[in-house]
Amino acid sequence: MQNSLERQDLREIGHAAVEWAAAYYDSLRQRRLTRPTTAAAVRAMLDPALPREGCDFSELLQAIDGVVAEYSRHNAHPRFFGYVASPGVAVASAAALIAATLNINVTGWRSGPVAAEMEHLTVGWLKEMIGYPADAMGLLVSGGSMANLSALAAARAVRGCGPVYTTEETHFSIKKAARLLGMGPVRIVATDSSLRMDPAALTRAIGHDRAAGLAPSLVAASAGTAGTGVVDPLAEIARVARAHDLWLHADGAYGALAAMAPSARPLFAGIAEADSVSLDPHKWLYLPVGTGCVLYRDSAAARAAFSDTAEYIRVIGLEHDEAFAFWDYGPELSRPFRALPLWMLVKSVGAKALADCIEENLASARYFGELVSKTEDLELLTPVGLSVFCFRYHPRGFLGDLDALNERVLLRLQQSGSSYLSNTKVRGAFALRGCVLNFRTTRRDMEILLEDVITAARSL
Amino acid sequence: MQNSLERQDLREIGHAAVEWAAAYYDSLRQRRLTRPTTAAAVRAMLDPALPREGCDFSELLQAIDGVVAEYSRHNAHPRFFGYVASPGVAVASAAALIAATLNINVTGWRSGPVAAEMEHLTVGWLKEMIGYPADAMGLLVSGGSMANLSALAAARAVRGCGPVYTTEETHFSIKKAARLLGMGPVRIVATDSSLRMDPAALTRAIGHDRAAGLAPSLVAASAGTAGTGVVDPLAEIARVARAHDLWLHADGAYGALAAMAPSARPLFAGIAEADSVSLDPHKWLYLPVGTGCVLYRDSAAARAAFSDTAEYIRVIGLEHDEAFAFWDYGPELSRPFRALPLWMLVKSVGAKALADCIEENLASARYFGELVSKTEDLELLTPVGLSVFCFRYHPRGFLGDLDALNERVLLRLQQSGSSYLSNTKVRGAFALRGCVLNFRTTRRDMEILLEDVITAARSL
Repeated sequence: MQNSLERQDLREIGHAAVEWAAAYYDSLRQRRLTRPTTAAAVRAMLDPALPREGCDFSELLQAIDGVVAEYSRHNAHPRFFGYVASPGVAVASAAALIAATLNINVTGWRSGPVAAEMEHLTVGWLKEMIGYPADAMGLLVSGGSMANLSALAAARAVRGCGPVYTTEETHFSIKKAARLLGMGPVRIVATDSSLRMDPAALTRAIGHDRAAGLAPSLVAASAGTAGTGVVDPLAEIARVARAHDLWLHADGAYGALAAMAPSARPLFAGIAEADSVSLDPHKWLYLPVGTGCVLYRDSAAARAAFSDTAEYIRVIGLEHDEAFAFWDYGPELSRPFRALPLWMLVKSVGAKALADCIEENLASARYFGELVSKTEDLELLTPVGLSVFCFRYHPRGFLGDLDALNERVLLRLQQSGSSYLSNTKVRGAFALRGCVLNFRTTRRDMEILLEDVITAARSL
Repeated sequence: MQNSLERQDLREIGHAAVEWAAAYYDSLRQRRLTRPTTAAAVRAMLDPALPREGCDFSELLQAIDGVVAEYSRHNAHPRFFGYVASPGVAVASAAALIAATLNINVTGWRSGPVAAEMEHLTVGWLKEMIGYPADAMGLLVSGGSMANLSALAAARAVRGCGPVYTTEETHFSIKKAARLLGMGPVRIVATDSSLRMDPAALTRAIGHDRAAGLAPSLVAASAGTAGTGVVDPLAEIARVARAHDLWLHADGAYGALAAMAPSARPLFAGIAEADSVSLDPHKWLYLPVGTGCVLYRDSAAARAAFSDTAEYIRVIGLEHDEAFAFWDYGPELSRPFRALPLWMLVKSVGAKALADCIEENLASARYFGELVSKTEDLELLTPVGLSVFCFRYHPRGFLGDLDALNERVLLRLQQSGSSYLSNTKVRGAFALRGCVLNFRTTRRDMEILLEDVITAARSL
């Protein structure tokens, strides 16, 4: 006799889920970006009791439609510009269903021969997309924080626990990883007028620590900061790192895949020199959250950090080996089939379409920068960096607190539900900040954003 | 004008994906469990070139059907007994599609109000299922290795980096986490005749280290070992840990959810005393890989380990707070919507059906143990622990190398494609090992397994 789990019919519930999800994608432009609520209100809408008996799938879809979707922020909306948000894409939705059904546990080759090979293959594509050496190794992780943690662990294995150099613009996961791994102290290197790491200041900081008897271990550069989209001068930093025998990690979680766009490619010329790179296909390849990647030039360093044997042994031809185990190169043992959505996306649309979308995202951000420059009472706070723009409302003759004023503009804008920005600080000043990371976003959306900002500002 | 990503129609590709996935589930019993291949052969079947242009979804489905599914191991097959494998379930396949479509990034409440509340709610269910205090906090992580790493980091924050106590039966991710976090040395505590940690030996080991001037930090007990299904005497170990002011971590990645089954519940009586627990809904709740959970009795310890401020500050009422951030309690920032498949599964079938399935898995393993005991030339190497059975082929009068003989039996069995076991060592002896973790597995499947083992053994 079948139990109730076995009786579930994927045809019935799967097709209903597809209809719901397709309608959700179709509804994006008509949706409010957020709907204000409270924790208590949400809890009241979700029955908290552990259910003893089951319910119909239609009831679940009703709750997903009426509660989950209704009170969530819509990261796939073409005018969601907050943070660094993946928008989701139809083929990845289908891929997620297939991956969950096959449910391959990609611990290593033995447990998933095709999944392991597909991961090697797609990681190879990522290397090609950003111009990283083809003989580097890499693996998919859950996101940028895990990629940074993995890279720092590999650095620690061969460069020790000494001082780590980065800038104030760097993502906080670098500091968090250093703390978990017992590396440090973390030195904040000065930036130039464009908020890029100053190689001369880096050299001085390293010299200072060496003179004090410390053994510097790692430079963490940014290949696209989340705050302002700045790419550190990677080639120059690589020269400093090499001269002083430090590991260079490039955090490209947000930015590295912009190397696919011809207009941004030169910024990433030095990324091939980095000892490790973080990049997130769940950012600029538009994939669902949970698909990050770490690349290592020297796979033996990663192996020294993660392998049970801890021996610093170079394995020859490992990507061709049926004995290959991902757990030797990263923190996880069980690993979902992250390569499948990545493979299906790239195969289904091709690299050119992805590069075109990224280029268009960059162009949309620059276009918005131009709109701001031409608009009375708005000012750009820093040049548009990759697809990030930072600006503020500054009415002529206003002598009050600009930070407080712009906080109010931001809240009013977010409440409008039509466009969504988040905030950052640029040289201490409160900035309205947006990031274009959605293939659905058009130039017209940038114009609507401008109108929405002006409306919010004028309404105060 | 729409770009090619935007033109993708989820109705078209989603329904095709559902039909394929439903047919895959239907085909399980007819499939060979594995199909022998090589890395080179798989690579030859997957076109490695980065595609410039896209292709039809039907081409992708063909490759998924003819290559990915064909040459993968079928963890959902009712006679896949290797390792500790999640079998996948239809409602979770549909949930994965919905989660990828909504694509909520569950960093904290602000980015996903409903997703955050649903995570608190489902983690609450998990606590209830295993009998852990309702006021503990917890979060979903990618699996057991990350849960163990998170728990050890919390322990380190309040108990320091000193010696860690565990047994030889413990999962290797404990040692791996200790090494990443700079904790240790790791002491291997003796086990009793049932392979359970010996509390007296633990007391002696702690005393020895204290006498040597070390500051013991943590005991890592197993709430169901992956090798033999042993549950350490948690209540007694908790008394020792408390008496010596050590953190007690219970690794229940495989086993803890067996507490839902009345016949196993008493084994977990002491789990409520643990300071932290790992458990994997992607094991005994049958969910797809990527859904683990860590529980902390003292949320402030986790906060001290992971929060940017690193202050040991108890936050009051945090699960009710709109300012709640998961990144303060775990290693990730971006986090997929892991709670959705968990919520949809429990809602759709109810806790009773899940408990019944787990109980039936335990009963199937015990039934197989009885079959082995009654079968000439087979011997159990240790009592059935939870749903794990370890045995070997031992023909009467055989005087050769039993380990080598059983390795050959295992390979022959795996090649048959009808039943799949993996291997372990039991007190140094090579064991054929199986773990029942699939709601599709019946008593009849256990009988077929027995026949397959005998056929494999006799064919040598």
